[in-house]
Amino acid sequence: MLYVIGLGLGDEKDITLKGLEAVKRCDRVFIEAYTSLLSFGISSHGLSTLEELYGKPVTLADREMVEERADEILSQSKDSNVAFLVVGDPFGATTHTDLVVRAKKLGVEVKVIHNASVMNAIGVCGLQLYRYGETISIPFFTDTWRPDSFYEKIQRNRSLGLHTLCLLDIRVKEPSLESLCRGKKKYEPPRYMTIHTAIEQLLEVEQMRRESAYNEETTCVGFARLGSEDQKVVASSMRELLAVDFGTPLHCLVIVGETHPVEEEMLDFYSLKSELSER
Amino acid sequence: MLYVIGLGLGDEKDITLKGLEAVKRCDRVFIEAYTSLLSFGISSHGLSTLEELYGKPVTLADREMVEERADEILSQSKDSNVAFLVVGDPFGATTHTDLVVRAKKLGVEVKVIHNASVMNAIGVCGLQLYRYGETISIPFFTDTWRPDSFYEKIQRNRSLGLHTLCLLDIRVKEPSLESLCRGKKKYEPPRYMTIHTAIEQLLEVEQMRRESAYNEETTCVGFARLGSEDQKVVASSMRELLAVDFGTPLHCLVIVGETHPVEEEMLDFYSLKSELSER
Repeated sequence: MLYVIGLGLGDEKDITLKGLEAVKRCDRVFIEAYTSLLSFGISSHGLSTLEELYGKPVTLADREMVEERADEILSQSKDSNVAFLVVGDPFGATTHTDLVVRAKKLGVEVKVIHNASVMNAIGVCGLQLYRYGETISIPFFTDTWRPDSFYEKIQRNRSLGLHTLCLLDIRVKEPSLESLCRGKKKYEPPRYMTIHTAIEQLLEVEQMRRESAYNEETTCVGFARLGSEDQKVVASSMRELLAVDFGTPLHCLVIVGETHPVEEEMLDFYSLKSELSER
Repeated sequence: MLYVIGLGLGDEKDITLKGLEAVKRCDRVFIEAYTSLLSFGISSHGLSTLEELYGKPVTLADREMVEERADEILSQSKDSNVAFLVVGDPFGATTHTDLVVRAKKLGVEVKVIHNASVMNAIGVCGLQLYRYGETISIPFFTDTWRPDSFYEKIQRNRSLGLHTLCLLDIRVKEPSLESLCRGKKKYEPPRYMTIHTAIEQLLEVEQMRRESAYNEETTCVGFARLGSEDQKVVASSMRELLAVDFGTPLHCLVIVGETHPVEEEMLDFYSLKSELSER
């Protein structure tokens, strides 16, 4: 049996009782390391908190391993219980869907244990989840690659009065250009897009397009370390959010559409004004 | 402190370790009963599984109680620890946002503990969460009230190639017409919309509108008891889903938009064909 278990967003204690029981039944435990383990304070050397809770060793599975050695993980799942742990909910990322498809094709039984993900935890700011349009991803711009297909999606959502969740780029274990040239595997340090970078890129695209999808006065909600003990949520204009120190990653951003009174009341608690008066 | 704690979708063991620790710290524990407790097998007399796990009594809080006696719940939260348990994630329903707003206005500290909700657990069918448009709600039609504003939303989502999550009506503790007339509180038995009723209503609206937003050959995914041990997920045309026995509630429905190859591979496992060959 392959258990695909969501860990939630905060720390090791955000696993469900059902998830923990499943891990305890498993002979091998893998944890995916290609989206982000940041909120769990885990580096490749620091799985001990999880291992202590689970009472067994945990193997860090990066994208390479999951893509290249999936058959190995899956063949073990045929004869024994294997846990594959995922930060958030198991179906946040396409790669996990792919692993499940491969498992099912091999006739391996799969059991999914759900948990919170960014997609629902953003509800904490008070904007109703059913009033969101299509979710967008903002990739890191480079000198030569500045894709802006998210612009039309934001435009569309806003014209319908809908909110837009912006997922910000994460670059983990990217092979360095130098290593690609030399044929040796060496990796760039991980990079996580901040709310500042996201807003700067958004405003740059608006300046190029000039179709008024949004501007620096548009209300947004910035989320840092969502679901963690030290999460930070601030609602304000893009311009003002550029001055807010959100601290360490992960960050994400919501561009606010039309709001209902109960949404506004809740957003007010996260406004820069409330933020300042709390200090 | 008011702890607003998501219970997840399955049973009592879908609470997180963090959530359980919080409940154990609390002097009073309320559980909301106005969306649905069905998946937890709880009637108003049957909280014992939860109470056993928590080691303390749990008070069932229906909509009336939360709306009328919120101040009582909140004043207790000022001086002691109070848990307010919610099926799924705390911010699935507007009513919970309202409770948090009232708490914050009274200066009560609020801590939210997230969990899985329908909004992310539908990811299990393989359709990517970022490819959904606006979520719609389908209300029970009556002889005189057949609101169809969801039609334009589905139309819009489909014209953009996006999937549509349809939340199906739940009627819990609705005062009966007779009781309203007599001024006595008496309630209708709870009603939960099935996938069949939803599809029938959808097709009825299409027949009235005739704008080809969808038809009985449109692929949908029906989910029953999502996140529970006995969940049932079937992907097929509306017409074929009408012949599937989904069993007891809760049900929800996804109208499929344009699909990517990895989405199709995963949907295939839930097709009626796979479903039949499993028997």
